[in-house]
Amino acid sequence: MPPAPPPLVLDLAGTFAFALNGALTAVRSARLDIVGVVTLGMITALGGGILRDVLLGALPPATFSDWRYLVVAAVGGLVAFVLSGRLDRLATPIAVFDALGLSLFAVTGAGRAIELGAGVGQAILLGAITAVGGGTLRDVLVRRVPSVLSSELYAVPALVGAAVVVLSARFGVGGTVWALVGAGACLAIRLLGIGFRLNAPRTGGH
Amino acid sequence: MPPAPPPLVLDLAGTFAFALNGALTAVRSARLDIVGVVTLGMITALGGGILRDVLLGALPPATFSDWRYLVVAAVGGLVAFVLSGRLDRLATPIAVFDALGLSLFAVTGAGRAIELGAGVGQAILLGAITAVGGGTLRDVLVRRVPSVLSSELYAVPALVGAAVVVLSARFGVGGTVWALVGAGACLAIRLLGIGFRLNAPRTGGH
Amino acid sequence: MPPAPPPLVLDLAGTFAFALNGALTAVRSARLDIVGVVTLGMITALGGGILRDVLLGALPPATFSDWRYLVVAAVGGLVAFVLSGRLDRLATPIAVFDALGLSLFAVTGAGRAIELGAGVGQAILLGAITAVGGGTLRDVLVRRVPSVLSSELYAVPALVGAAVVVLSARFGVGGTVWALVGAGACLAIRLLGIGFRLNAPRTGGH
Repeated sequence: MPPAPPPLVLDLAGTFAFALNGALTAVRSARLDIVGVVTLGMITALGGGILRDVLLGALPPATFSDWRYLVVAAVGGLVAFVLSGRLDRLATPIAVFDALGLSLFAVTGAGRAIELGAGVGQAILLGAITAVGGGTLRDVLVRRVPSVLSSELYAVPALVGAAVVVLSARFGVGGTVWALVGAGACLAIRLLGIGFRLNAPRTGGH
Repeated sequence: MPPAPPPLVLDLAGTFAFALNGALTAVRSARLDIVGVVTLGMITALGGGILRDVLLGALPPATFSDWRYLVVAAVGGLVAFVLSGRLDRLATPIAVFDALGLSLFAVTGAGRAIELGAGVGQAILLGAITAVGGGTLRDVLVRRVPSVLSSELYAVPALVGAAVVVLSARFGVGGTVWALVGAGACLAIRLLGIGFRLNAPRTGGH
Repeated sequence: MPPAPPPLVLDLAGTFAFALNGALTAVRSARLDIVGVVTLGMITALGGGILRDVLLGALPPATFSDWRYLVVAAVGGLVAFVLSGRLDRLATPIAVFDALGLSLFAVTGAGRAIELGAGVGQAILLGAITAVGGGTLRDVLVRRVPSVLSSELYAVPALVGAAVVVLSARFGVGGTVWALVGAGACLAIRLLGIGFRLNAPRTGGH
């Protein structure tokens, strides 16, 4: 029995989290106007799913066929713009929304890759790409080295979350429960990574 | 009655304007050699249409199926390379060609999205993406914060121009006249935005 | 008689060379951890082919349908991470692996474009895009002006290598021999360009 498709609600929640994250990043690091803030929020929210669908050849991307993604992303950006004036410090919400989006997209991205017939390895990789894609575009646009290259455990938790979904589906026990387990594992590793400033091994030289 | 497709001549004119803009940007901000100048001109000219066609799932993109786009983009880059030595100051032509490309692509991009069956909201958004896409790639490649995020009224006029085309088509009065009205409205707003340094609202804090 | 498809071995060799190059670049210019190093290696190795397949409308890209590309890219990144501690200076291997990847992808990219029915001009351009695409993504991600815009003879040798393959196929003599001739020509021009710091003409002004 094929696994149920990832619940739409998880995917929209990830979209909303990344829209808040991208928009708050725009307020904080680039002092953009409302259009720039909402635009960066929408690119962060929709970029990962677009990249995934291009790599799966599933065009037009779901985010453009289904209005709900566009609306959720735009509303997230607007909410962040309005709220940003009330938040004393933005660093913590930015990091938390990023970790939430990362975790939700890792599992929904992997689920969609399975649905469309990708193999085990590809589905795990595509889950991770969905998770890190939007944030990578965000970082390039505000001229930072992307988190996926530099940050404490960013790609690793995404791969773990995607692997939980793909392997559970492979063993015939897929479904919303395992999607939540995968997302929870990803979120826990990411937050530990931030909290303890953990990194994967580095080279000694140079 | 479906609207006539946007006249090819408007699309090629936009391609030429963006090729001039991208190539002059290369001369001015990065002092590149002729290959770099023409390459940046071509990326600026073709990037928006490629992005639009990827999002519409209309691959290969029109710019690769139809030689005229490639030729016009390359010629524009070469012309700009040759002329750049004669221009005392490049800032004004760069801004004007950018505004022209923005206006023309907003209406032709929206027109192509309608042709390919996109809904009202998506067609407006895709018009704006066509308009701002090439310039965003240009800015990323020369390491500037993209105009679409930072600039005086850049995305807003593109959305207005696209909306004129989409709504006129929706009400059955589409055609070249309304494409010109949309492009004119976009151009006027953009040039006013530059002239008066207008911006959309900003947050107070941070 | 249509030309034989470019030997897979050349394409995998190019993938390996770019994976080494991207990963060593990550070690050198950004001091990334192992995940960042392998990620940048894989993006450099796979980016050009993905871009080419998007522009050809051949989705999902070969690099995602065929596991061997993913494995070769990942292994290349890991090998570079391990070896980087032993290399006193990284500048020379980085430049050489980049030139090798450029040369191999120019000919295999052009070959794949011909296979999929692209015209002469498009196939030459797509060969060059395959060759320079991964390195351009690499440079954007580590925040450098891309080699294709700034470097001594980078796009020119790629165009030459692709043209050798496309024109030999056009005259019915295509095959592995001409692919090697094209790659050799590209490599020679690129290395001469680096060695003698040659550049295409520049404008005088500004």
